[in-house]
Amino acid sequence: MSKTIRIAVLGASGYTGADLVRLALTHPHVEIAALSANAKAGQPMADIWPHFAAYPELPPLVTADEIDWAGIDVVFGCLPHATSAALLSGLSGPRIIDLSADFRLDDADSYARWYGTAHPAPQLMTKAVYGLTEYAAEELPDARLVACPGCYPTAALLALLPGVDAGMISPERISITALSGVSGAGRGLKEANLFGEVAEAVHPYGLSGHRHMPEIEQELGKRAGRDVRISFVPHLVPMNRGELETITVDLAEGVTAEGLRTAMAQRYAGAPFVHVLPEGKAPATRMVRGSNHAVINVFPDRIAGRAIIVAAIDNLVKGSSGQAIQNMNLMFGLDQTAGLTQAPLFP
Amino acid sequence: MSKTIRIAVLGASGYTGADLVRLALTHPHVEIAALSANAKAGQPMADIWPHFAAYPELPPLVTADEIDWAGIDVVFGCLPHATSAALLSGLSGPRIIDLSADFRLDDADSYARWYGTAHPAPQLMTKAVYGLTEYAAEELPDARLVACPGCYPTAALLALLPGVDAGMISPERISITALSGVSGAGRGLKEANLFGEVAEAVHPYGLSGHRHMPEIEQELGKRAGRDVRISFVPHLVPMNRGELETITVDLAEGVTAEGLRTAMAQRYAGAPFVHVLPEGKAPATRMVRGSNHAVINVFPDRIAGRAIIVAAIDNLVKGSSGQAIQNMNLMFGLDQTAGLTQAPLFP
Amino acid sequence: MSKTIRIAVLGASGYTGADLVRLALTHPHVEIAALSANAKAGQPMADIWPHFAAYPELPPLVTADEIDWAGIDVVFGCLPHATSAALLSGLSGPRIIDLSADFRLDDADSYARWYGTAHPAPQLMTKAVYGLTEYAAEELPDARLVACPGCYPTAALLALLPGVDAGMISPERISITALSGVSGAGRGLKEANLFGEVAEAVHPYGLSGHRHMPEIEQELGKRAGRDVRISFVPHLVPMNRGELETITVDLAEGVTAEGLRTAMAQRYAGAPFVHVLPEGKAPATRMVRGSNHAVINVFPDRIAGRAIIVAAIDNLVKGSSGQAIQNMNLMFGLDQTAGLTQAPLFP
Amino acid sequence: MSKTIRIAVLGASGYTGADLVRLALTHPHVEIAALSANAKAGQPMADIWPHFAAYPELPPLVTADEIDWAGIDVVFGCLPHATSAALLSGLSGPRIIDLSADFRLDDADSYARWYGTAHPAPQLMTKAVYGLTEYAAEELPDARLVACPGCYPTAALLALLPGVDAGMISPERISITALSGVSGAGRGLKEANLFGEVAEAVHPYGLSGHRHMPEIEQELGKRAGRDVRISFVPHLVPMNRGELETITVDLAEGVTAEGLRTAMAQRYAGAPFVHVLPEGKAPATRMVRGSNHAVINVFPDRIAGRAIIVAAIDNLVKGSSGQAIQNMNLMFGLDQTAGLTQAPLFP
Repeated sequence: MSKTIRIAVLGASGYTGADLVRLALTHPHVEIAALSANAKAGQPMADIWPHFAAYPELPPLVTADEIDWAGIDVVFGCLPHATSAALLSGLSGPRIIDLSADFRLDDADSYARWYGTAHPAPQLMTKAVYGLTEYAAEELPDARLVACPGCYPTAALLALLPGVDAGMISPERISITALSGVSGAGRGLKEANLFGEVAEAVHPYGLSGHRHMPEIEQELGKRAGRDVRISFVPHLVPMNRGELETITVDLAEGVTAEGLRTAMAQRYAGAPFVHVLPEGKAPATRMVRGSNHAVINVFPDRIAGRAIIVAAIDNLVKGSSGQAIQNMNLMFGLDQTAGLTQAPLFP
Repeated sequence: MSKTIRIAVLGASGYTGADLVRLALTHPHVEIAALSANAKAGQPMADIWPHFAAYPELPPLVTADEIDWAGIDVVFGCLPHATSAALLSGLSGPRIIDLSADFRLDDADSYARWYGTAHPAPQLMTKAVYGLTEYAAEELPDARLVACPGCYPTAALLALLPGVDAGMISPERISITALSGVSGAGRGLKEANLFGEVAEAVHPYGLSGHRHMPEIEQELGKRAGRDVRISFVPHLVPMNRGELETITVDLAEGVTAEGLRTAMAQRYAGAPFVHVLPEGKAPATRMVRGSNHAVINVFPDRIAGRAIIVAAIDNLVKGSSGQAIQNMNLMFGLDQTAGLTQAPLFP
Repeated sequence: MSKTIRIAVLGASGYTGADLVRLALTHPHVEIAALSANAKAGQPMADIWPHFAAYPELPPLVTADEIDWAGIDVVFGCLPHATSAALLSGLSGPRIIDLSADFRLDDADSYARWYGTAHPAPQLMTKAVYGLTEYAAEELPDARLVACPGCYPTAALLALLPGVDAGMISPERISITALSGVSGAGRGLKEANLFGEVAEAVHPYGLSGHRHMPEIEQELGKRAGRDVRISFVPHLVPMNRGELETITVDLAEGVTAEGLRTAMAQRYAGAPFVHVLPEGKAPATRMVRGSNHAVINVFPDRIAGRAIIVAAIDNLVKGSSGQAIQNMNLMFGLDQTAGLTQAPLFP
Repeated sequence: MSKTIRIAVLGASGYTGADLVRLALTHPHVEIAALSANAKAGQPMADIWPHFAAYPELPPLVTADEIDWAGIDVVFGCLPHATSAALLSGLSGPRIIDLSADFRLDDADSYARWYGTAHPAPQLMTKAVYGLTEYAAEELPDARLVACPGCYPTAALLALLPGVDAGMISPERISITALSGVSGAGRGLKEANLFGEVAEAVHPYGLSGHRHMPEIEQELGKRAGRDVRISFVPHLVPMNRGELETITVDLAEGVTAEGLRTAMAQRYAGAPFVHVLPEGKAPATRMVRGSNHAVINVFPDRIAGRAIIVAAIDNLVKGSSGQAIQNMNLMFGLDQTAGLTQAPLFP
């Protein structure tokens, strides 16, 4: 197949933008046409990213305004929330894959409450396809605007939707403990991201409410057909990449952990990136580092009638840039694995 | 005060033994009389431990048999389970502080089931004082045999007992997610402990059952006056020291998270090492690294009627060797902080 | 191009074997025909390597004896030294790319002295092509046996050969300080490789002599036309991958650091994996993590007449398995970048 | 002994200030009277430092102007260079121990060149005692102003002065490779200090000249009686604390590495914090983490007539705050180990 997709990446000075470029570099059908970062415009990627030191041929960073949209097939929005919607809503040419939070929620009030600002383009909120790839395959081919899920929702929903859809787990009393590497917090200059704060240390955060919580609740609610409220506690772990969620759930009457595990394995039988592990094998982030894979498993809980579901992804790949490319592949009629075949990096 | 306590440490080639020696070195009332490690007998501590390179004056390692027990006031058992009870049960002179699992459980059947071997000295199982210091102050002065709690139970019980004792939380549906540094697994040569496996990675373990689970259930059950079953999922985190537990609980009717927090602060008002943090401040392991402190806090959960309790300790100090010394202090009429005044090491 | 090279990997249970498999998985012209590991024979790769959990389709491990050599085009030896030569010297069919130390040295006495054992196949020692790819392009197409350089020699020689070849640096008084991640030491169960020993710590090792020293001296000596003795001090750094060498050299009369830098840039102008960085930019391991790239630069030293050369590689890729594949590509008439186009992983 | 020294710490919001407070907390003869940090004035230490979460009783931060100097015996300057001299030069009451660079160099021109600003109090530059404790014991008891050495100079001079003083090593061709944990760069919000940049990575820095270079040269020059120029390349290593220097030197005619080692051991025989390790044992930062110890050893180099000296310290303790307290002890007639007896923390 000889199709070439010309892409633009808005916000290529952030981690998600950079990881998108990393993956796009070896995608057989992608040409990187433009890279923007307003605050770094004029600089080569090799100057702001160490891992592109050997890639002086990458397009230099420009401002978003400088991009010539003619001939751009798809734009990836890797910008902060609100900035993203404001900018993308004005584009008419290219198809849009947004990695920010702006088109994930359907409800403008909820957005305003959680993100502290009015949505810049509320009319688009319900038009976006929610790009959890394994659940969006039918909508993606025709999608003009795709909202890529947050990293925590990606792992949570991959772990929970098979059971919720099948009525095997209750949407009540879902309790999610999440562990994330520090790249989830971005490359911003915050004390909390310094090596000295993060290394040799763990702590929970967002205990008063995390923005990925309403997103998970929204998607679970859609499937369950009623309002859902979850418990969600993310933790910062001293590693760069990787995200692991340990979820305890109430099983429906008569359902066992093993039954749920079997149903989940069937659900993902054809999914190239979602792997239900053999019985008893615990998911670990080192199984997926740098790759688009997700690994999941189900275990019986010691409290009767409950099960433990564990899921691991690379937050920057399946949790962000990799899933964005997986979505692009389906939007453009490619095999969904195109450009995403790299095996995880270990050690 | 001029009292000098002569101590022996059995198993000084393991992490808990070594951390006990580290703390004992600056204890104003302790003399390190003997250090054993059968497999390393004859070697100086400076040869097997990097941090004792500057301490050539430490007693050399001997076999347990070579120790002259006359004049030893207290022996710290830092041996593997079963080995510990077998050896310690034969000692008649010194008072005993055991850091192994051997005297934590009251029930020989439970011990056999979880530890895979018959208890070497079942007659002693119920004679040991369970040395969670903040709850054992009355028994310690006269104790001959003290069983120091496991690291996970220490954090869990410090976090849960105030609420259970006050009837503010239900002993049902307690769900504990624990994160631990790798020192909890000891210095043994296991692939799972290699830098390459642990760094840049997290994963849960013990999903089919962890030995600290029955210990937590036993102590909660004693307080609650009935059998308790908990959910407990430990995770390995890429750091040396530190342990954090995030616990979700059902609150009793009419109890709020803030009410529980206040009660907990009152319970520990006089405890020099247990600190309920200001409202909203999340415990973190970097608050306690290398020290005997525990930090705890309570937060409302998004699921109504539930609360989140978070506790952090250094698994080798408050979770093991530091608590052992704290117990010794009370056994010998010293201030409980003696030798434990070092502030945490950060960064 | 439709050529398919069928490969066998001997020693696929070690880090170099595993990284070779990782790279081979996405090589467009490679089929992984057989994987051996005598001690793990019968196990799937997914059971012994976390990062292959999503690759159950990989050939299971077999013993070396079980491999059917008919139809194998090339064998990669990822075995310990001595074992490697003993086994490979008996093979007559496939071309051989050895990643062990066995065919790097030309001299059997030197081998015996540094490796503590007589060479199993001394007659082959001078027949192997020394596979520092950038210096072996002419010999590789016809090579039957290629000895891949050690990781330290790879970085050292890439940094030093341009200057030595051009007579711009003296082969006397070359002083190499090397920093390596722990994967260089393999996945063996050694106390020195435990997370607890490696994390939050650095130290030099091999101060009485390291096996890569004679290899570097041999290759420098061949180029300089005389015996060379170098100073070489490797250090273990708390990271998984990456190797950085900081080398101080005497410049020849009239040569400047900038002149040397320019000459080096010219020497590697056509090399897809060796990058002389812009003036003043310091090489860093994060520029190459997981990739086959090498980054190099030259700086003036404060001591007159001397220069500082810095080189960084990923020890498992350009320092081992990546270079092995790069060699294979040239042996089989492929573009040398085939299968090696992955960009570095950052963060 | 019942003497109490009342101290003030200027700049308690930086790492050196915080580590000084950590050590002072358990010093038997110190009372922490005042802590300043202009930008954080009004905040409790427990709010800006995680490890003081359990120390709400610490004095709150004030501006330097707010300190009541009456009754302050000694002030520790933990401020940035230039700021420090400007502020300290106006104080007349307390004795001064400065941890900044301001009073290390003797020459105002050199200061201006390396620090990019005119010295605020050049008249004091030659009045300060250079507080490398092991070489300043005679001057400290009467010192009014002590300049604590930089972290790199501390390790370098401890390693080099015995040989230089004894004429056993040449001051020419000294080549220092230094590895440092990230705390040496402070807690400032710089991209270079982010976890994502530092973890799993090493790189050299300061290749065009580092400010500790002239300080080392000055002190070596004083001892050698002539100008000295050294080669010095620092590297950033992914750890919080610790500093290791590997130094290659020319031995004087007839001197052996073993002879130098013996002389060094004799020189430090009475020094409680400087340890020449047994023959062949390599210094490592894990030997000293969190403590005031320095470990040193000497090895023969493969290049004839040269030796390798390796030294390790904790950059924040012996390289900064610990040495400052050691100096204070001698200034006030205390045992130099007072408050510094904590053993290293491992793992």
